[in-house]
Amino acid sequence: MTPHEKAKRELERLAPVAGNGLLHRRAFLRGGATLAGAMSAYRLVPSASAQKLADDPWSLAPGAAVPDYGVRSRFENKVVRTLSNPKAEPRTQHARTPHHLLNGTFTPNALHFVISHAGDPDIDPDKHRLVIHGLVKQPLVFTLDTLSRYPMVSRMAFVECGGNSAPMFSNEPIQASVQALHGLVSCSEWTGVPLSSLLEEAGIDAKAKWIVAEGADAPHLSRSVPLAKALDDAMIALYQNGERVMPGNGYPMRLLLPGWEGNMNIKWVRRLQVTDQPGMTFYEARTYAPILPGGKAYRFYFIQEVKSFITHPSPGLALSGPGFYEISGIAYSGNGRISKVMVSADGGQTWAQAALQGPVHSKAFTRFRVPWRWDGGPVVLQSRAWDEAGNMQPTRSELVAARGQTARPPAVTGFPSQHYNAITSWAIERGGEVRNVYA
Amino acid sequence: MTPHEKAKRELERLAPVAGNGLLHRRAFLRGGATLAGAMSAYRLVPSASAQKLADDPWSLAPGAAVPDYGVRSRFENKVVRTLSNPKAEPRTQHARTPHHLLNGTFTPNALHFVISHAGDPDIDPDKHRLVIHGLVKQPLVFTLDTLSRYPMVSRMAFVECGGNSAPMFSNEPIQASVQALHGLVSCSEWTGVPLSSLLEEAGIDAKAKWIVAEGADAPHLSRSVPLAKALDDAMIALYQNGERVMPGNGYPMRLLLPGWEGNMNIKWVRRLQVTDQPGMTFYEARTYAPILPGGKAYRFYFIQEVKSFITHPSPGLALSGPGFYEISGIAYSGNGRISKVMVSADGGQTWAQAALQGPVHSKAFTRFRVPWRWDGGPVVLQSRAWDEAGNMQPTRSELVAARGQTARPPAVTGFPSQHYNAITSWAIERGGEVRNVYA
Repeated sequence: MTPHEKAKRELERLAPVAGNGLLHRRAFLRGGATLAGAMSAYRLVPSASAQKLADDPWSLAPGAAVPDYGVRSRFENKVVRTLSNPKAEPRTQHARTPHHLLNGTFTPNALHFVISHAGDPDIDPDKHRLVIHGLVKQPLVFTLDTLSRYPMVSRMAFVECGGNSAPMFSNEPIQASVQALHGLVSCSEWTGVPLSSLLEEAGIDAKAKWIVAEGADAPHLSRSVPLAKALDDAMIALYQNGERVMPGNGYPMRLLLPGWEGNMNIKWVRRLQVTDQPGMTFYEARTYAPILPGGKAYRFYFIQEVKSFITHPSPGLALSGPGFYEISGIAYSGNGRISKVMVSADGGQTWAQAALQGPVHSKAFTRFRVPWRWDGGPVVLQSRAWDEAGNMQPTRSELVAARGQTARPPAVTGFPSQHYNAITSWAIERGGEVRNVYA
Repeated sequence: MTPHEKAKRELERLAPVAGNGLLHRRAFLRGGATLAGAMSAYRLVPSASAQKLADDPWSLAPGAAVPDYGVRSRFENKVVRTLSNPKAEPRTQHARTPHHLLNGTFTPNALHFVISHAGDPDIDPDKHRLVIHGLVKQPLVFTLDTLSRYPMVSRMAFVECGGNSAPMFSNEPIQASVQALHGLVSCSEWTGVPLSSLLEEAGIDAKAKWIVAEGADAPHLSRSVPLAKALDDAMIALYQNGERVMPGNGYPMRLLLPGWEGNMNIKWVRRLQVTDQPGMTFYEARTYAPILPGGKAYRFYFIQEVKSFITHPSPGLALSGPGFYEISGIAYSGNGRISKVMVSADGGQTWAQAALQGPVHSKAFTRFRVPWRWDGGPVVLQSRAWDEAGNMQPTRSELVAARGQTARPPAVTGFPSQHYNAITSWAIERGGEVRNVYA
């Protein structure tokens, strides 16, 4: 390649590949001369004296003692979950993940979303038992210690409440952060015992078709799980991101059903009853049987379908002026791996393919990224994901046509409020402010 | 396959593949009839009434309020780092990771090892600056905000102190936990800006060969890094396991050099000076230039070489009687991916191949696992790892022949005390107690 051809190719790499300044996803990968100057608005050229670096107070005296259990910087204390019921009144509590303040491919334990219908039980792990009974050859009881002798596996998996993103069904866009709109989904590495090992040891009766799983919390929350899922990739999870499972996520053990509705992933699990029919429990017969516009209801709507949203920028993270930014977000599918994410800056007219952070795990968060040069004018950002099973994230209008929408926020009207997986649109105004819009 | 052949094959799968009861790594994967009964010592057969499940106190009343920043169970409060200098006296502090109490493939932030030579500085992220200067076309200064506009990447990477496992050089085996022996290594997902992007924008002078990196801590700890590594996979890390980097690990930003000696991964990084020669700083000229038996020293010994150790069982985790267990541990290499881990239960006479938890990341922890049937007699457990570059973990006698050993613990004698990557051996006595031995 001649120097002229090389320069031309590098120029092309910095040319937008879609409307309103979206750049090629590899524009900044080890580009050599390409990057030089491109980001120059975002650094300060120091004077010679600045290179001496003035010593701030923390560079002039010893710092704090290293604690036995690390504590984050006090400057990060605002990075918290938002609580729907902070005084723990006798109703459901929601704690939502602040996706706009995080980065990477999974969620720290302290910030994993929690829905708790009667608070977090304070379980003594030495006294907790897991029983498997019903249509089995021999019922079994496990302690945490005996379970820990079984062969274990680790896997990344997202857990998402079926009601996550419920505000998106509202017929007017609700002005709220990505945390308020999409904060009931999180992703962890879970380590535990494959449920298939335990069921096979119990010996499954030929008539068995379902498992009814029950928690040790005060409501004894229970859900029915098809046996095929229990024998596929279900797990009794004992560790979350390397540590014991958090109290709000089921300490000392939870059922993990990768890719399936959060409520089914029974926390504080104490019983698995093998049956020939579903339990028709409260949560599957009423709460998680979403009503459709025609008056019928989805029953046993298990899968959390392919979905994505942009976390950076997003409402509350205003842009500080025209120039280069990275657009970044999260994609996931209960049907397997994310195969592609496209990003638009012109409300869906043109699209650029995003880079996917590898390795891409099945039924887990995939971070996507695309470089962008904002010219300062109004734009509408969208992301759209595909999964390896060939599913495409729908537009909001497509989803609403099938499911209906709500005149008021779903917290007031109740239904429809579940399994929203359609496109989210962020409008950016001239001043850099980001707003939720329907585009 | 006839039923007879199938039964024979399943029996073979439960037959040991190496001495003292090591089983095939896939013996318990979806084995159907194979597992039935194999683990029967580890569950209790309940009476019919036990299936009703007595309600413990936590199942009878609402639990605790869900907090905005999650807190682990009070029953886990003993899972902490051990501190070498808990009163923060004016010398180095070490905080070691409790590998025997964790599981999975990376380390929770609160338990990541820390070595701090003057405590953890309390840095205001809005005032912190990163300067790149020296042999560059234009010196640059970045704030955290301006750095955050650059394209980012995420990757798993271990960080290990060059002095990790120093007690293993002692000429008598020191009786201590895996935390005390190997606790100065941890693994995280790091998210940040490739250093190559920043250096390319600064414009590297043709004479440049090194980077001298300096921290904002009171000692202004500095190390020299070959330019080739800085342009390869080095990163200015802004996030650790999804959250901002922890104070003990460099908040608000650190240099990450995947696979290289921990001390070089400059925490609280504030300066990168591009030079034509190394800085010959204190840590590279004195502390991390290990002296060999002949009196010469290794200089610029960067790579943390292929290594593994068994975490379960390990000293302090006594076995509770004969029967099935999972042997599990951690393997990693600064040269790339782990390609194979072999486990022995007879002190290295015979070996069984361990299962590797996938996906296997380059220069990151790989969890290995192998099922085992302990007959109750004395055994010696060992693990040995290989990496994709073809390197094999050495035996302790091979390493000691090359590097020497210490008559007393290295904390007393000083050298040799670095880059121990040889095999660790755990002896298990008849009672189930686990001890560190040289075998």
